[in-house]
Amino acid sequence: MANSKALVVIDMGIDTHQEPLVYMREDCHVCRAEGFNASSRVLLKTNDKHLIATLNIVDNTKLPPDHVGLSRIAIKRLDVTDGDRILVTHAPVILSFSAVRKKVYGHTLSDREILSIVSDISEHRYSDVEIGSFLSVCAGRRLDPGEIISLTQAMVSCGKRLSWSHKGGVFDKHCIGGLPGNRTTPLVVAIVSAAGLIIPKTSSRAITSPAGTADTMETLTNVKLQVKDIQRVVAETGACLAWGGAMNLSPADDLLIRIERALNLDGEGQLIASVLSKKIAAGSTHVIIDIPVGHTAKVRSQTDAEYLSSLFAQVGEACGIQVRCVITDGSRPVGAGIGPVEEARDILAILKQEANAPQDLRDRALMLSAHLLDFAQGDGFDKSRDKARDLLDSGAAWQQFERILAAQGGIKTLPQAGYQKTQTTSIRGVIQSIDNRKLARLAKLAGAPFDPAAGLRLHANVGSHVSRGDALFTLYTDSAGEQDYALAYYRDNPGIFVIGDDK
Amino acid sequence: MANSKALVVIDMGIDTHQEPLVYMREDCHVCRAEGFNASSRVLLKTNDKHLIATLNIVDNTKLPPDHVGLSRIAIKRLDVTDGDRILVTHAPVILSFSAVRKKVYGHTLSDREILSIVSDISEHRYSDVEIGSFLSVCAGRRLDPGEIISLTQAMVSCGKRLSWSHKGGVFDKHCIGGLPGNRTTPLVVAIVSAAGLIIPKTSSRAITSPAGTADTMETLTNVKLQVKDIQRVVAETGACLAWGGAMNLSPADDLLIRIERALNLDGEGQLIASVLSKKIAAGSTHVIIDIPVGHTAKVRSQTDAEYLSSLFAQVGEACGIQVRCVITDGSRPVGAGIGPVEEARDILAILKQEANAPQDLRDRALMLSAHLLDFAQGDGFDKSRDKARDLLDSGAAWQQFERILAAQGGIKTLPQAGYQKTQTTSIRGVIQSIDNRKLARLAKLAGAPFDPAAGLRLHANVGSHVSRGDALFTLYTDSAGEQDYALAYYRDNPGIFVIGDDK
Repeated sequence: MANSKALVVIDMGIDTHQEPLVYMREDCHVCRAEGFNASSRVLLKTNDKHLIATLNIVDNTKLPPDHVGLSRIAIKRLDVTDGDRILVTHAPVILSFSAVRKKVYGHTLSDREILSIVSDISEHRYSDVEIGSFLSVCAGRRLDPGEIISLTQAMVSCGKRLSWSHKGGVFDKHCIGGLPGNRTTPLVVAIVSAAGLIIPKTSSRAITSPAGTADTMETLTNVKLQVKDIQRVVAETGACLAWGGAMNLSPADDLLIRIERALNLDGEGQLIASVLSKKIAAGSTHVIIDIPVGHTAKVRSQTDAEYLSSLFAQVGEACGIQVRCVITDGSRPVGAGIGPVEEARDILAILKQEANAPQDLRDRALMLSAHLLDFAQGDGFDKSRDKARDLLDSGAAWQQFERILAAQGGIKTLPQAGYQKTQTTSIRGVIQSIDNRKLARLAKLAGAPFDPAAGLRLHANVGSHVSRGDALFTLYTDSAGEQDYALAYYRDNPGIFVIGDDK
Repeated sequence: MANSKALVVIDMGIDTHQEPLVYMREDCHVCRAEGFNASSRVLLKTNDKHLIATLNIVDNTKLPPDHVGLSRIAIKRLDVTDGDRILVTHAPVILSFSAVRKKVYGHTLSDREILSIVSDISEHRYSDVEIGSFLSVCAGRRLDPGEIISLTQAMVSCGKRLSWSHKGGVFDKHCIGGLPGNRTTPLVVAIVSAAGLIIPKTSSRAITSPAGTADTMETLTNVKLQVKDIQRVVAETGACLAWGGAMNLSPADDLLIRIERALNLDGEGQLIASVLSKKIAAGSTHVIIDIPVGHTAKVRSQTDAEYLSSLFAQVGEACGIQVRCVITDGSRPVGAGIGPVEEARDILAILKQEANAPQDLRDRALMLSAHLLDFAQGDGFDKSRDKARDLLDSGAAWQQFERILAAQGGIKTLPQAGYQKTQTTSIRGVIQSIDNRKLARLAKLAGAPFDPAAGLRLHANVGSHVSRGDALFTLYTDSAGEQDYALAYYRDNPGIFVIGDDK
């Protein structure tokens, strides 16, 4: 770029998540001439790319003259490196934001307006504050079913889309999060694909939890599959267990989810569009949605769960995908392992029918598998559940799981954590409750999911009888420091396990 | 701080405006142990101060081990310097945000809920995204008059408050912005204080315009007055013309305004609370609000102006302050100078009754002064306007202006811009319209308000007859580069002045 106003790029090495930041000197002639302030929205241009970013002004001592610093995501999206030249000008007005303002005033948005917003968000034209504004005025049941349908379709149309040519349909399952452990997906995929269903499963990594399905599966095999790898694995086995993050199926969704979590807003409209758009983009035709209900789960009452169910069905139908919701118990952790490796151990124990396999996780996986089998084959829930159990008990599901892992690149040996420490109880009684959120926090303080072997293993769950000296859980960490840190948190939070009288 | 988990502070020299940022290495043990991600909200603690900040993760090459970078506002609020030690932990849950979520769901907020939100915002506990969420769900006429009253009172109670012991009341004026030039405040203050009214005027600097009243007054005298200086100047002269920014009268307001502008949300509730809270905190008892109506002004229709007027009166009454709104012409720039020094020249010309003084600015100042005098003395508008004109024509207002400036530290000589360039028209006709926003942009590109002498002087306004070769405006800049830059913008935007047939 030969333009005299071009500035020289410096990679600041700063991770600002999805929002691109640009750093300019306070005496920079471009800054002054354009009248930029800290937090101004600016347009960055190379010869062939452009990007809207938020400005931070830096001390003249921190950047050389005529240089401009970029955050990591800005470096990546502009595809530049140190020494390249870019132009910085005022950001254009984002026209779709007038539709957001229309929603501020309580008006219903058209298909086209919603598409323009989602398209601008997908192309990174909104700041985090603007995305937050959009989410805030759409939450609180302010999107009607028509708008949720538009939002779902807009999110699909702004991303990639997979297609499959299987006559019997393409199956998927999704859980509306919140319970530690509860790693049913690999089990369900193994069972139903052993029965012949096509289930090309893509999953996310943990965002706020100690493990996502992709983190757990990564301890067992390669999950970073390209679209062509997924197609090959599914052609060979009928299924896959891949990380969905590299596939760009619904680019707006990743941006929306992060801000929604930061604001702790639980808009059903946004949730439904987020889940269904990814399923539709992945080419699914039949989806089971698991909605756990409990005090510390995402959905807290049966009424809310039923409302959500009916909206899911309505939006699914309009978008040409069959959706069945299953309302489940969300009051306690599911399984014994929490953290990538420990959850993988539970899965292997169940598939290999080991004696110590957690029964609650097995039951849950069978129940969800039964719904999918019934969906596909119409034999009713009870018969389908028997079939699922047969597939598990006969070893067919385990063989199928091994086939999927072989097709993805082979099975790995699970690592051992460097340190382990078992905590016992000094009280005799029955476990009345376990605080799901604090238990998840404990596993994260131990290092999960960053250290895959870190996490914990429950030796008792809600309803267990315990005597003085009985083990409650074993903590796994990769360093003594993390062990101290997590145990200090456990001591400071005596209410994680509530043990009461056993009468 | 002797704690082993304490990290060593580095001042990053980055201006992130009001939102504190903290920069941590990706391998930092605290970061990993706490499970922080980019954009996590964290709590920074010294021995005696604490602050909530947003996290950015940096390359291990950009910070030494066990060090933590802070943005400027974080350095300032924590009162730390390079080498000090701080602790970084998870940010506490901000309880008042549950009231914001209640508003998301369309519920009316109580006095106490609004106070808890404003108090947390004032104490910098909200991120920009959270402030944006609050503003978004309150805009669009979603605050009822009772909530606007609560918001106004909450904003007053979270800041400092001045008090005066003048029996006849304490006067003030405010303009709901949007017109370039239009620097009536110094004129009105001189005129009405010459008539004996008490008017301790505090003003802001420009945020998006080429000059604020404080910028203009700073070219003429010292405006950085402490509370005790203001009290002395008002005791001596009955008035002052100070910068209000150092006074912390409504700390929440500065935070809200910036995000509101970024989102371009024009919530009346927020506007009224913002204006009136600052007046109440400044101890005013009687306020005139100037509401210009025009296509490129903030308020675009008479109906909107009347609605705003009635809300202002209602909220003012509930808060014990008398408010009178004046709906004025907002269709064109007012005065000839745009930019701090050029606006100061207009003020001096009017006060000193020079031949070239802009009549429109003079008329507007007399009209607003008349409303204030009538407010105080009850002689009716016409008689009050005559009185205001007499004070101006007799030189009493000029003498009073000189007294105020002397009390604030003396009168300065206005600087000359280094470069000037006059633009002429090649068309004969009548000026049909001037684009207020683009004209303001032109003055900013020239360097205003950063360079006080930069800006422009209009030689014609809407309605002027012009012939080929007549001057439209003179541009003032401090560098040849800025002149080129501004003139290029002028050439690229031929619609700033629309000249039509003179019939």
